[in-house]
Amino acid sequence: MATSEAADLLFVGVDVGGTKVAAGLVNSQGEIVANLRKPMVADGDAAAGLASVIAAIDALFAANANAREAIRGIGICAPGPLDPKTGIVINPPNLKCWRNFPLAAEISQRYGVAVKIDNDANAAALAEVRWGAGRGYKNVFYACIGTGIGTGIVFDERIYHGRTGAAAEGGHVSIDYRGPVCGCGKRGCIEILAAGPAIARRTRAKLSEQPARESALRALARGNVDAVTSEMVDAANLAGDTLAHEVLRETVELLAVWLGNTVDFLEPDVMIVGGGVAAMLRPFFPELPDHVAAHCVNSRSREIPLLAAHYGADSGIAGGAALCSVDR
Amino acid sequence: MATSEAADLLFVGVDVGGTKVAAGLVNSQGEIVANLRKPMVADGDAAAGLASVIAAIDALFAANANAREAIRGIGICAPGPLDPKTGIVINPPNLKCWRNFPLAAEISQRYGVAVKIDNDANAAALAEVRWGAGRGYKNVFYACIGTGIGTGIVFDERIYHGRTGAAAEGGHVSIDYRGPVCGCGKRGCIEILAAGPAIARRTRAKLSEQPARESALRALARGNVDAVTSEMVDAANLAGDTLAHEVLRETVELLAVWLGNTVDFLEPDVMIVGGGVAAMLRPFFPELPDHVAAHCVNSRSREIPLLAAHYGADSGIAGGAALCSVDR
Repeated sequence: MATSEAADLLFVGVDVGGTKVAAGLVNSQGEIVANLRKPMVADGDAAAGLASVIAAIDALFAANANAREAIRGIGICAPGPLDPKTGIVINPPNLKCWRNFPLAAEISQRYGVAVKIDNDANAAALAEVRWGAGRGYKNVFYACIGTGIGTGIVFDERIYHGRTGAAAEGGHVSIDYRGPVCGCGKRGCIEILAAGPAIARRTRAKLSEQPARESALRALARGNVDAVTSEMVDAANLAGDTLAHEVLRETVELLAVWLGNTVDFLEPDVMIVGGGVAAMLRPFFPELPDHVAAHCVNSRSREIPLLAAHYGADSGIAGGAALCSVDR
Repeated sequence: MATSEAADLLFVGVDVGGTKVAAGLVNSQGEIVANLRKPMVADGDAAAGLASVIAAIDALFAANANAREAIRGIGICAPGPLDPKTGIVINPPNLKCWRNFPLAAEISQRYGVAVKIDNDANAAALAEVRWGAGRGYKNVFYACIGTGIGTGIVFDERIYHGRTGAAAEGGHVSIDYRGPVCGCGKRGCIEILAAGPAIARRTRAKLSEQPARESALRALARGNVDAVTSEMVDAANLAGDTLAHEVLRETVELLAVWLGNTVDFLEPDVMIVGGGVAAMLRPFFPELPDHVAAHCVNSRSREIPLLAAHYGADSGIAGGAALCSVDR
């Protein structure tokens, strides 16, 4: 890292997941100037979980001279439920180490700076508004579509938290109340219908139901239909496979129903879509506004920009940094 | 009207519908101290539509001495689309008289006071927050469930309008993307599934499909299943009819899916439900939070109060008044 960058305001963004902690230094322009990953011990006791986070931050400071003096805050994003107001991690299913654990207070005490926490998608949404595709917009809806679907709502550069910080669980909005049961227990959530695993599942079903239908996916999966992944569907689609194309087109239709609902409920100024599945669906983006328009009563929905997210796999680091880049 | 009331701050609330204009005087405590109805000429030219509104306001002033001097503003609610910022009525399907009509400016010029307009449900939501069931709450979701389903969102005593004022069309959020086609063109909107006409429709279907099943509704409809209305279903349910009870219970389940989605997306501090169908469903209210909890991932949804609206048929008048009772 160059000295001039170290002299700039720096924020530490930390992305805590079930198996890894990613930590990075982000400057006041939202550029990730350094980052690294460490293992996360999520199934031990609270101290082991905390030690994993500290190890990542310490390693970041060790690798970047002068960074510790230049930082203005540490922001941590993690899977919820958590309370962004008190900085307490409540009871995330895949961070069993922490139950009502005061993560923000512990990290703040350790490094002597302000620490904020929030859930991944909320933080990523704020990063897009501060530094990415959402700059200059007032009412912002953000969705990260990958293995799951996380969403965030930002009004006037503030994350909309709702009553306890559990708002904006858009991935678990149901568009099919009699549909397949989601991991969350509800039926027909957009996550169970359109995230990565759903793409793979629907593809496998088509391949099984239509054994005579030719598809590059049979070769990609080496004849084992059960081995088909969403990444294979992506590759097959790019190679012109019609079955893969069909599955992705259906996914776009499902997402359009969901985005149509979002427009009718929230009428945001912009919708920003990121994540692995969103990247996979990029070829369909130009036609998406027409699909959304067909699924909402808002006659001016086409005026709402539907943008690709600026941040990719590093959205958690940028998101964490964004949390402490705002004063409120 | 007593002199002491005339000396109080007064707001005129006007509710413009497809066939009638209701106008009322509302004091600063939100009490409707006078009100009347006049016919609305909605299918003539713009001037005829305007004249209907003026006739109602003039009649209100004529019937209430000193009211004109005491009023602080006029608020008008009407079916959308309309632009609350500019006060322009855009193109409501059942107010064909007005196309991009500057209703607020016309009324303001006529009476020399500030005039605000907004759609019915938004205005009614604000009235609940100012003077009704929503007092003291920060993030409020309001639904009026009757012949249709209108909703409003109020944050910090401000109506949430979204990009152009078309937000909070909660009645047209779909929970069944392959479901019946709504009047709006979308499939599976909660309005087509659970509003008054849906209750009647589902009841008629049950009576036809189960011709041997006894039900008080057959007598209420004088043997003509096609004549069943939602009011008859209400009456039959109150008289202990099991078929009517079954239909209303299903309606509660559908609304619970929709409210569950609302909690997951918005996590409001309170949910307020009004309208004729809501009144019909009052016997089911005590169990509704359990149904909602079964349809959302928010583990603390039961802490969100689900309240009956304070205003009934006069919610439009109260709503109009509420619009001009706030300074912003």
